[in-house]
Amino acid sequence: VRTLKLTIAYDGTNFAGWQRQTTERTVQATIEDAIRPIEGERVVLTGAGRTDAGVHAAGQAASLTLKSAIGASELQRALNATLPDDVRIVDIDERPPQFNARFDARRKTYHYLLWSGGILPPSLRHHAWHVPQRLDLATMNAAAEILVGTHDFAAFQAAGSDVQTTVRELVTSRIARLPSGPTVAIGDRLMRYEVTGSGFLRHMVRNIVGTLVDAGRGRLTPEDVRAILASRDRGRASATAPPHGLTLWTVEYETDAEATPSATNAESSSQTA
Amino acid sequence: VRTLKLTIAYDGTNFAGWQRQTTERTVQATIEDAIRPIEGERVVLTGAGRTDAGVHAAGQAASLTLKSAIGASELQRALNATLPDDVRIVDIDERPPQFNARFDARRKTYHYLLWSGGILPPSLRHHAWHVPQRLDLATMNAAAEILVGTHDFAAFQAAGSDVQTTVRELVTSRIARLPSGPTVAIGDRLMRYEVTGSGFLRHMVRNIVGTLVDAGRGRLTPEDVRAILASRDRGRASATAPPHGLTLWTVEYETDAEATPSATNAESSSQTA
Repeated sequence: VRTLKLTIAYDGTNFAGWQRQTTERTVQATIEDAIRPIEGERVVLTGAGRTDAGVHAAGQAASLTLKSAIGASELQRALNATLPDDVRIVDIDERPPQFNARFDARRKTYHYLLWSGGILPPSLRHHAWHVPQRLDLATMNAAAEILVGTHDFAAFQAAGSDVQTTVRELVTSRIARLPSGPTVAIGDRLMRYEVTGSGFLRHMVRNIVGTLVDAGRGRLTPEDVRAILASRDRGRASATAPPHGLTLWTVEYETDAEATPSATNAESSSQTA
Repeated sequence: VRTLKLTIAYDGTNFAGWQRQTTERTVQATIEDAIRPIEGERVVLTGAGRTDAGVHAAGQAASLTLKSAIGASELQRALNATLPDDVRIVDIDERPPQFNARFDARRKTYHYLLWSGGILPPSLRHHAWHVPQRLDLATMNAAAEILVGTHDFAAFQAAGSDVQTTVRELVTSRIARLPSGPTVAIGDRLMRYEVTGSGFLRHMVRNIVGTLVDAGRGRLTPEDVRAILASRDRGRASATAPPHGLTLWTVEYETDAEATPSATNAESSSQTA
């Protein structure tokens, strides 16, 4: 029995999220079902984190124990040949038996795309939240920076969540304009919020984005955002941003040589694991 | 009766191309059907060029005569409120009565996206052609440059075409790597072919791209491409590249103040028409 780590990219548009459900099409079930004929029996993937319906991934991670002796590269090729084209295995490498993609994850990075004002290009309609107003970048960044550090993020947790602690550490929380993109003439309307942390509460990134957008609209000041954080009261933060702007960008582990998803260069990186 | 120019963006994935057909979903029919209740009768759009099924547009242009006195901005808002989200009216402006988007087009620019080797990110699966091999950019550019100028492009015309002349002028024909993109970690795998010309034969861009890719793979030298062009023989050029990598980027007219599709900044530009 070996333990493998899979790095996975998906377009979440036509998935009901990561986690297997009884009837809906999910990423976990789609990949597990593709591995089953190779392993000869049912397998269970442990994802680094669950993503909701409509949320995308460039570098989701999952662990898996396998009896089959199939090579990692061969498994990757076999899976990509059978999987639908909205999910790709970008890397597979061998890990020690105790490796668990969920519990060993050290940091995660999410990206959230916003389109501010104007007309949303059709090619971004499933990947960016179209906010009709012009957003003030400096105000949003001042608010975003307040969240860096170790805080109780209860105000940004989904209602009804039940976790032991709502304290999390963010090491990066910033927003920037993106100057250009391959499918659209972007002008200065596309913005990306980038957040890296030790862990995230349910809907935390989307609740933060909803609040930052209200700051960018002039409805909240950065000091209001500081007060919302301190209140630990979900009722004070803004509405949850829609899922389709969100991408799970990378999951980092102690053993990772590098953190960026150059995982798309899979042939080479899967050799060096 | 007024004449309007519409600038249109669409994701061609779920359209059977631009031109109205009896039963298929097309861009032209979708927009005409959305204008009809505003005008109170059937309208006909004249597109600058027909795009095939799967081909996208960032700045397609179309002309239209209208009896309704509705303001250009109001019409744009009304259309974007009713159109499906894979087609957007990015600009509308008034033109002289004799304006015809097809015959008055002075230049068109197309972009074609290629993903070279590795794993195609799911978010680009409908917008980039995945070529499994590594492509040599310098060779491709040497071949692309040969096509600049006024030539008989019969070798790159779709079989069975019937046009008076196959001579066209290209003013730009070049390929470059794109360093980054909003939805994917791109590395150096994404390339964009950019071509601007006075006019294009049917499938001409896709036939050029297929040939440039064969040069990038090492199957053709730049001199081979020169010989293919000179032969005027469609049988000598490479296979047609798939439609989904292609985007009609802009259409330029004599009266255009600017050529780039900052048309996405529609609120402002539609005022100044």
